[in-house]
Amino acid sequence: MEFLLIQFGLSIFSYNSETNSYTQQSYNFYVFPRPLNRAAPDCRFMCQASCISFLANQGFDFNKLFKLGIPYLTSDEEEKLSKRVEERQRAREEGLELIPISDEDKPQIEDICSRIDEFIDSEAEELTIDRCNAFIRRLVHQEARMRWPNKIRLESKTEGGGQCLVVQKIGTKEEEKQREVERREKEKSEVQEAVGLSALLRKIADSGKLLVGHNMLLDLCHIVHQFFAPLPESYSEFKALIHCLFPRILDTKVICQSPQFRESVLSSNLNILLETVSKAPFSLPEVNSVENRSYSVSAMKSHEAGYDAYITGLCFISLCKYLGSLQKPEVSTVLTDSSLLNPFLNKLLITRLKDVPYIDLTGKDPNPSRDHVFHITFPKKWRFSDVSQLFNPYGGVSVSWLSDTTAYVGLNRRDQSGSVLKQLSKVGNFKIQKYAEHQASLDTSNQLTHGERKRKLSASEKAPSSKEEPKASSVNIPETSEDDGWEMASGKRRRKRRGPIVTGKALDAERTKNFAENTTWE
Amino acid sequence: MEFLLIQFGLSIFSYNSETNSYTQQSYNFYVFPRPLNRAAPDCRFMCQASCISFLANQGFDFNKLFKLGIPYLTSDEEEKLSKRVEERQRAREEGLELIPISDEDKPQIEDICSRIDEFIDSEAEELTIDRCNAFIRRLVHQEARMRWPNKIRLESKTEGGGQCLVVQKIGTKEEEKQREVERREKEKSEVQEAVGLSALLRKIADSGKLLVGHNMLLDLCHIVHQFFAPLPESYSEFKALIHCLFPRILDTKVICQSPQFRESVLSSNLNILLETVSKAPFSLPEVNSVENRSYSVSAMKSHEAGYDAYITGLCFISLCKYLGSLQKPEVSTVLTDSSLLNPFLNKLLITRLKDVPYIDLTGKDPNPSRDHVFHITFPKKWRFSDVSQLFNPYGGVSVSWLSDTTAYVGLNRRDQSGSVLKQLSKVGNFKIQKYAEHQASLDTSNQLTHGERKRKLSASEKAPSSKEEPKASSVNIPETSEDDGWEMASGKRRRKRRGPIVTGKALDAERTKNFAENTTWE
Repeated sequence: MEFLLIQFGLSIFSYNSETNSYTQQSYNFYVFPRPLNRAAPDCRFMCQASCISFLANQGFDFNKLFKLGIPYLTSDEEEKLSKRVEERQRAREEGLELIPISDEDKPQIEDICSRIDEFIDSEAEELTIDRCNAFIRRLVHQEARMRWPNKIRLESKTEGGGQCLVVQKIGTKEEEKQREVERREKEKSEVQEAVGLSALLRKIADSGKLLVGHNMLLDLCHIVHQFFAPLPESYSEFKALIHCLFPRILDTKVICQSPQFRESVLSSNLNILLETVSKAPFSLPEVNSVENRSYSVSAMKSHEAGYDAYITGLCFISLCKYLGSLQKPEVSTVLTDSSLLNPFLNKLLITRLKDVPYIDLTGKDPNPSRDHVFHITFPKKWRFSDVSQLFNPYGGVSVSWLSDTTAYVGLNRRDQSGSVLKQLSKVGNFKIQKYAEHQASLDTSNQLTHGERKRKLSASEKAPSSKEEPKASSVNIPETSEDDGWEMASGKRRRKRRGPIVTGKALDAERTKNFAENTTWE
Repeated sequence: MEFLLIQFGLSIFSYNSETNSYTQQSYNFYVFPRPLNRAAPDCRFMCQASCISFLANQGFDFNKLFKLGIPYLTSDEEEKLSKRVEERQRAREEGLELIPISDEDKPQIEDICSRIDEFIDSEAEELTIDRCNAFIRRLVHQEARMRWPNKIRLESKTEGGGQCLVVQKIGTKEEEKQREVERREKEKSEVQEAVGLSALLRKIADSGKLLVGHNMLLDLCHIVHQFFAPLPESYSEFKALIHCLFPRILDTKVICQSPQFRESVLSSNLNILLETVSKAPFSLPEVNSVENRSYSVSAMKSHEAGYDAYITGLCFISLCKYLGSLQKPEVSTVLTDSSLLNPFLNKLLITRLKDVPYIDLTGKDPNPSRDHVFHITFPKKWRFSDVSQLFNPYGGVSVSWLSDTTAYVGLNRRDQSGSVLKQLSKVGNFKIQKYAEHQASLDTSNQLTHGERKRKLSASEKAPSSKEEPKASSVNIPETSEDDGWEMASGKRRRKRRGPIVTGKALDAERTKNFAENTTWE
């Protein structure tokens, strides 16, 4: 979450029952946390050179991103910003805390004040004081309030790269009141501008409509993190938050990997999937585009978020048509409220977990056998090749490191589990234990969630005594609990409405990083 | 140093004694750590939204940066890259470590192998296998070496966004040898390309020429960090490293703030300085531009690194001319080897230290009085306003936080030091101590440099017992020692050559951040 979501794609499909066709409108938003004014948060974020390079070479327009990218705020950030604006308004009424003027700044302040004195006695309507840094402007504000109360008004302005201060004479009481009203209106609309794309995402969440994505777990994480609230530390709270925000989610990759589809869909790579669902036994739906608001398949704008969202929608409808054709009697049109979709609803794929079909946002996650997984303890100097050689006679392993001296290993050949335990438990400088046994041996204090652990830490100010903490890894599945501790602050209930399908796709640096990691082999 | 230097400006001035004029050539380099191949380091770095926005609005071309930015490597990184390339070459000769093929990958590998079998028996010259991710390519390489040794050659290629594998039949032994020679040549030149701008910076360092910058401390830090070596943790080693790399450095800001110039130069802001040195008693030199290689003053390209470097050079020459005119008898031309420059040489300004004129790279730093500075201890709930109110009766303070409960404070009015100590040492929930006394009270273990502390930590694996560590701050000047522990790996001695002036200016996110921090007052 240190990386940024920088493009958000949205494609809206609406079904017309009379013509049995869809209309499609697609949007490609550049998203960037431009601080619109000094009160807005100024975000620091990470980048990875290879991802940036990749995107630039794919035609991603970074100048547009940084100059025109749409900002966003979580609800908490919006509240903070509003409060800060109100504090400023109060400061304008009540005055500022006094800052002593140092000997060094005194000559400049006195020079400015004497120019203001002259200006007040003159016929001039405006006086511009240039080369005025922010601290000097702050001091002049303070002096003006004491020396010429209700006589002049000061405003900061940027001119030719440098900051300057504009001095004007004050009007009648009514004029000043009207001016303050207008200023507050402007400040209010600036807060709305800073909320930016979050307003759209809140609308999408409030609509309760079906949200379709392709391999969307990481996208959802970024969407929630940037537009709604920080991600909870506990896994069950995370699932509850996602479900509360988006009560109807569908990941097309979950459909592709289900038993009914697995044989007809060989690769669920989005572009290949589009090819697959364009040919028999699948067929693409009839989609009418809206002028200037739609992509076409021939555009081939892969990696543009809006285009990816559009393709995802097309694939989804085609998969639905096929699903209907498998029923007896055949169902001619599968819409978003069809019960045929229920088996796929609110399930998300974790790409690297090959034997877990999905995580389930509303129930217990599948709990596949871990009988081929072992916990091992070995000398500190061991590297991947040492571990790997040990298991080569049994068909090899995948390794998930826990520390310098411990790891989980998963056998490639599950039928070798018995021999491994029998023969390797005799090796000298090396200890092996069944996954289930190791899990059971971890005492309760180690099974706390990260969040609970943090709270405990701050209460006792001591680190837990155990050195080894199981890390999230491809063989270490967090346990699902029924604890629904999280609740929406607003407490709104979602209506399940029938209507257009919403497809979201986020383009983020982390995802491209995974791409890069997968291609480090030569 | 988590931020990046993204533009490097260089302006070279050469003096022609016959015409008593200068020629100027300027360069503006976009710098970005594009990983040119998979062996090159893939850098992660921080950005700050406000800086990025500021630069984008100043016309900085981020698309150019990310697509065409020149990469760089430190010497260590270059060595590592060369080693990795050699390892690959060895792997091509000796073969790869075997990876077991999982049941899941087997069908695809077998399919590819049978296509290769067909290809070998055919007349075709080339076979392209598409949709081949990096791991699959790695497995095919491995199979090819076993099944068809010295019969086929595999090469990875990117086509239409996807990765594919190109299979070719192998030529005669001589042809293959020649091919390998060419491949190694290409790999060698790729390493050179990755060294990129570092090659230029090494040339500049090796030249021993005078390097002029304006407020250049942070620029030097970034230059050393990106192009040469990580910054040392100890202050004295840092000074020694900078001096060893660049034996003749001149910061125009040090000249501006020297007693001879302070009265004529009111602001040392670069653009204002240019205005100042364009008028009497200063005068700009006659500078001839080189076609397509020079800026002119009227260009007004502030914040473009190359332009800033050019302006710095102009200001430097004008300041030198004035320096010559102050001598008796007058010195008409002050060149870079003039002894008149000695008082300013190898001194750098720290912007926020108002009472320390400079840090001295080759000697002891100035050691100004700290009699107006106090160490204070206070309740945890105290905030800035609590501390500030306490000292308001004595003319106010600047605060430099050490921890939640301790800080150094510097009085604005030095003459109040006596009263402060007398009156505030009686306040109940608050402790005050002279700066010198507090420094003396810190025992030796706390006075270790950060580097020494780290080494000590790893030796004993225990944290130091004291809770409070003095942090670098505006009143806590690190002590200069004569310890010249650092030596260049190459051990080259620099010749002091007379020649053109080199002016470097780096544009970095951190600097712009400071700009932003200074303007948070309204």
